[in-house]
Amino acid sequence: MNYPAFLPPARLLMGPGPIDADPRVLKAMSNQLIGQFDPKMTECMDETMALYRQVFDTQNRWTFLIDSTSRGAIEAAMVSLLEPGDKVLVPVFGRFGHLLCEIADRCGALVSAINTEWGSVFSPDVIQREIKSTRPKMLAIVQGDTSTTMLQPLKEIGEICREEGVLFYCDATASIAGNELKTDAWHLDAVTVGLQKCLCGPSGSAPITLSERAVTIIEERRHVEAGIRDENIVDGPGSRIASNYFDLAMIMDYWSEMRLNHHTEATSMLYGSHECARILLEEGLTESIQRHRVNGHALAGGLTSMGLKLYGDQNNRMHNVVGVYIPEGIDGERLRHIMLLEFGIEIGTSFGPLKGVIWRIGTMGYNARPDAVLKTLACLEQCLLSEGFKLPPGAAVAEARRTYAASTIS
Amino acid sequence: MNYPAFLPPARLLMGPGPIDADPRVLKAMSNQLIGQFDPKMTECMDETMALYRQVFDTQNRWTFLIDSTSRGAIEAAMVSLLEPGDKVLVPVFGRFGHLLCEIADRCGALVSAINTEWGSVFSPDVIQREIKSTRPKMLAIVQGDTSTTMLQPLKEIGEICREEGVLFYCDATASIAGNELKTDAWHLDAVTVGLQKCLCGPSGSAPITLSERAVTIIEERRHVEAGIRDENIVDGPGSRIASNYFDLAMIMDYWSEMRLNHHTEATSMLYGSHECARILLEEGLTESIQRHRVNGHALAGGLTSMGLKLYGDQNNRMHNVVGVYIPEGIDGERLRHIMLLEFGIEIGTSFGPLKGVIWRIGTMGYNARPDAVLKTLACLEQCLLSEGFKLPPGAAVAEARRTYAASTIS
Repeated sequence: MNYPAFLPPARLLMGPGPIDADPRVLKAMSNQLIGQFDPKMTECMDETMALYRQVFDTQNRWTFLIDSTSRGAIEAAMVSLLEPGDKVLVPVFGRFGHLLCEIADRCGALVSAINTEWGSVFSPDVIQREIKSTRPKMLAIVQGDTSTTMLQPLKEIGEICREEGVLFYCDATASIAGNELKTDAWHLDAVTVGLQKCLCGPSGSAPITLSERAVTIIEERRHVEAGIRDENIVDGPGSRIASNYFDLAMIMDYWSEMRLNHHTEATSMLYGSHECARILLEEGLTESIQRHRVNGHALAGGLTSMGLKLYGDQNNRMHNVVGVYIPEGIDGERLRHIMLLEFGIEIGTSFGPLKGVIWRIGTMGYNARPDAVLKTLACLEQCLLSEGFKLPPGAAVAEARRTYAASTIS
Repeated sequence: MNYPAFLPPARLLMGPGPIDADPRVLKAMSNQLIGQFDPKMTECMDETMALYRQVFDTQNRWTFLIDSTSRGAIEAAMVSLLEPGDKVLVPVFGRFGHLLCEIADRCGALVSAINTEWGSVFSPDVIQREIKSTRPKMLAIVQGDTSTTMLQPLKEIGEICREEGVLFYCDATASIAGNELKTDAWHLDAVTVGLQKCLCGPSGSAPITLSERAVTIIEERRHVEAGIRDENIVDGPGSRIASNYFDLAMIMDYWSEMRLNHHTEATSMLYGSHECARILLEEGLTESIQRHRVNGHALAGGLTSMGLKLYGDQNNRMHNVVGVYIPEGIDGERLRHIMLLEFGIEIGTSFGPLKGVIWRIGTMGYNARPDAVLKTLACLEQCLLSEGFKLPPGAAVAEARRTYAASTIS
């Protein structure tokens, strides 16, 4: 039994990600494969490293890709940096904070989590106090947690970590390219991301960058596998990393001039990652962040003008995703399905305590565009009206258009 | 600093893989993304499960994709099936046998390896004897090891494993679709593969299938992560799986009707995997294997007619890759570079004890075609001649053409 070719329906993805890939990325990914040690292949890998140094705003030599979704890169960072028994502090402000705890815990680390109310972020002194009392080896945090739409300020936390001698690891999958992230200036020792949010690509490749401090820890744990060892290989004195696939020492050897075989690089995803970074740098990091700011502002303003209430601390919201309360009397899932199946526009549901309470609407990457925001507001208004919600017709789109008119982007 | 768009050079990839992807696969991957819980997305996932059941020749419900290269799927199978202290037997007949040992060892398993001379395979009674003496929980083996080009017969090993109550796990990345593989008939409990060999796709997605016995073990270890738990979730009594990313219980929940969030499915790779299976089933499994047999035979016969000597036991060679001794006086790497950079044809080097001793030439997947084999023989002949090797001009291509003329494929 066979199936016909899979032809995805036309959708506009305005949820918390993944979103529509930039067609240029899909085009780059449709290029034919070349061999993994072809000089042009290794050139593409080297270029990708150089491109992502700029994306991460870092001088870190070790800036490369993990062949997995962004979740895999979190595991790679943790399993390579944390030894069983190491202490980790995780400030949790949403679902992905829990994920960091979970992964660290599976690495055998001793995890202390601190929590803040969903919809808010941490103040630096709470974190400083907690570091002083628990003395962790690593502080692990997400920059933007799509489950709550919050964006945690990192600059002061970085200063505290450096002062206290704590490794500072951040997953910035949801926030990068749509919000400021300064790896070196903020003293980040490891940052992981994915392509499927503001970087305009599909899930399946996860850029990572590592500071010298992080690399030193990892190199002490280098244990090259039996099948490719030779007499020139010297193992490090540290404990062997529990995962082979996510062993950053071996992955670094593969991305180094040694080109020691590890996995077979996912070539199409490499092409895609390369193009994602090129597109971003062509626009400019600052310009991309500004574009996300304006579109996010237009979206949020439109929603408010429609009479909807925004979720969470708006001063600490990611530019690229807005939480909005489902109005009383409206069946949130029913409306989402009408939006998706009749209007072809996807908006997001929620997890855990926010399930059925808020929708999450994104404007990110390729879809951080005025036309995408205006379509979404226009169609949401129609759906709300037809479900019996009272709103001032036309107000949302008018407000968003005012925002665009007052901004420099078009 | 930015780079121009990456444009891969025209290559014909006739090494041990990856090889040129079927252009249909690249086209499928260039389709636009849809949301991960879109009904059309889950339909595509369900179809992919049904397609790979046929590829693996199994009725196993749990047949799905791991979002990593094939190496990641090996780790997923092992970390989910093996608990620390479990005994594993690994018959090693090449580099990837060592990899299985390495990964099992990192999972905390007690690994016994048995070795056979490179270029040969194991007889079932050696394995039976070893199972009886070591009493492992799992026997782990690769079907085809590209490092030696050998194909291990599995049918009798499967019978032994079933009789002895041993879990039977096989990685068939290099062999599937080019050589017979019967998951159910051979009593395989877990099989992992990749797309980048005879399945005509890029590396980066790894199909897996699991028997009921394997699933039972994995389900006993289910521990749903904190961020997405609800009151309906019941954890299993077994020890928690050490990896979150490769936790097959959670990945199964994601691919099940529950659609419990885990990673964000690598949508483009899903599209590619779906199309790889469609292409194979359109041709037919038997027909694909026959095509690889004939092309491999034509390639091997051509190389012999050129005066080259083949490596290893030809009765147990994979159809899709041939090892050939580098003739005395020829610089193997120099010739490979001429082939690649002047003729645009990639042939493979080797690992470990075979480094500098043999080349490995593949004819697999999209490149298991007469024109690809004839081009390769013609250009290899020119390179050998120009390097001073004496050979009968035209004999290789003539022999390959005789093979094709006598076969039913064209």
